[in-house]
Amino acid sequence: MKHITSRENALFKELKQLASSSQARRKAALTILDGVHLCQAYLEHSGQPVWCVVSETSQQNPEVAALLASAENALVLSDGLYEQLSQVEHGVGIFFVASIPTLSPPNQLNETAVVLDNLQDPGNVGSLLRSAAAAGIEHVFCSPGTVSAWSPKVLRAGMGAHFLLRIYENTDLLSFLNPLVATGSIPVLATSSYAAQTVYQVNLNRPVIWMFGHEGQGLSDQLMDCATEQITIPHQGKIESLNVAACAAICFFEQVRQSLDD
Amino acid sequence: MKHITSRENALFKELKQLASSSQARRKAALTILDGVHLCQAYLEHSGQPVWCVVSETSQQNPEVAALLASAENALVLSDGLYEQLSQVEHGVGIFFVASIPTLSPPNQLNETAVVLDNLQDPGNVGSLLRSAAAAGIEHVFCSPGTVSAWSPKVLRAGMGAHFLLRIYENTDLLSFLNPLVATGSIPVLATSSYAAQTVYQVNLNRPVIWMFGHEGQGLSDQLMDCATEQITIPHQGKIESLNVAACAAICFFEQVRQSLDD
Repeated sequence: MKHITSRENALFKELKQLASSSQARRKAALTILDGVHLCQAYLEHSGQPVWCVVSETSQQNPEVAALLASAENALVLSDGLYEQLSQVEHGVGIFFVASIPTLSPPNQLNETAVVLDNLQDPGNVGSLLRSAAAAGIEHVFCSPGTVSAWSPKVLRAGMGAHFLLRIYENTDLLSFLNPLVATGSIPVLATSSYAAQTVYQVNLNRPVIWMFGHEGQGLSDQLMDCATEQITIPHQGKIESLNVAACAAICFFEQVRQSLDD
Repeated sequence: MKHITSRENALFKELKQLASSSQARRKAALTILDGVHLCQAYLEHSGQPVWCVVSETSQQNPEVAALLASAENALVLSDGLYEQLSQVEHGVGIFFVASIPTLSPPNQLNETAVVLDNLQDPGNVGSLLRSAAAAGIEHVFCSPGTVSAWSPKVLRAGMGAHFLLRIYENTDLLSFLNPLVATGSIPVLATSSYAAQTVYQVNLNRPVIWMFGHEGQGLSDQLMDCATEQITIPHQGKIESLNVAACAAICFFEQVRQSLDD
């Protein structure tokens, strides 16, 4: 275990960069997992972090102490230094530095997957990933314009879902989808308020690709053209649309419901 | 139409207070509806705002111009002054000042309703209200510890749902629920990962009260004791729980689905 008490320490400076700059994280292909729950989930599902960083005081917390004992590369920072790094107010005082996995999209796809086109809100993406993982979905493809799935905010909202998923960031969605659509190997579903078929009517007892788009503008026209079926979530009230993460949760769990009906 | 160009103007000072201080909004029982969409929805469903405030430049936007023409009490601020008030980056340059309705809980309840215990995240509450309104639910009861439903952030996330709902804030939930539970007049449902019955198995073809709790701790023990039925959303993945707004969306739209089955 390494102790750092000086802000001139080179490793501390590196951590500070990572904690404060999304560009630094991208360049290093590293991210920050803040708090006990995310760190526990990472150890359970992904393995050892690059660094386990705790504050002097937080070592007294039994959950932090347990994580510290399990981590191979541990750093204890004086409380003052730790505070300069933490992005969470009233946090418990532990974070992991972890590698961002980079995956190449598969050529074939025989399982249900999710496609995210240009989603902007970290809370929405985190919630959506959490719902996908809870519904047993494994593959998530994100357009280059979608908020970074591995940003600390999305990770916090994802509550560990990331470590159960295969997230393909910066995917050229059209290049990925077009061959799948051409071979007709898997249905590609888009939600639309104009669709005649409801999500409750479509057969979800088969692998499908769910597409969700930007919070304001929805899916791009080109992606909408990739949809082999459009579906609607029937509304009972005079409101135009649902939040995209709520919409996705309804779709994913309608698929779960249909699978249980069998 | 009134023009304001001086920051010493008394009305401008009042607007600045309202825009920047939740305490000032609560004291005045007024809130801020930021952006074209919310203002349109308010005019359509609720009527005239206290003030329609636009920036000099935004008058050229046709949607803003239409709203300005419909509003009885309009204020045009110089761009510099408007910028001091706006909470939204790159916004269009219009907001309404509107009254916060205060409602007393009814003694009887024969319609589906939602109870929110101590929810903290404005995005979650806004998304949940949006889903409720889309599912045709009208009544929402919020504990004193729940984030203010009429805060600008919750309003933005709600996308106009507020104007279709009856939101009873600061409700003493136990005093409200206990008589309903005692008379057995309406089922009170709580989600729990320990429940044996799934949300797909429970009869939702009847009015019910849906209860949702704090993002971390869930429902308080006392409220959980008010539940006449506990239900679970079956998970297929190794993840503990869903985001509360995602969970609510699944519940509300399972009720919609069951109503369409008839």
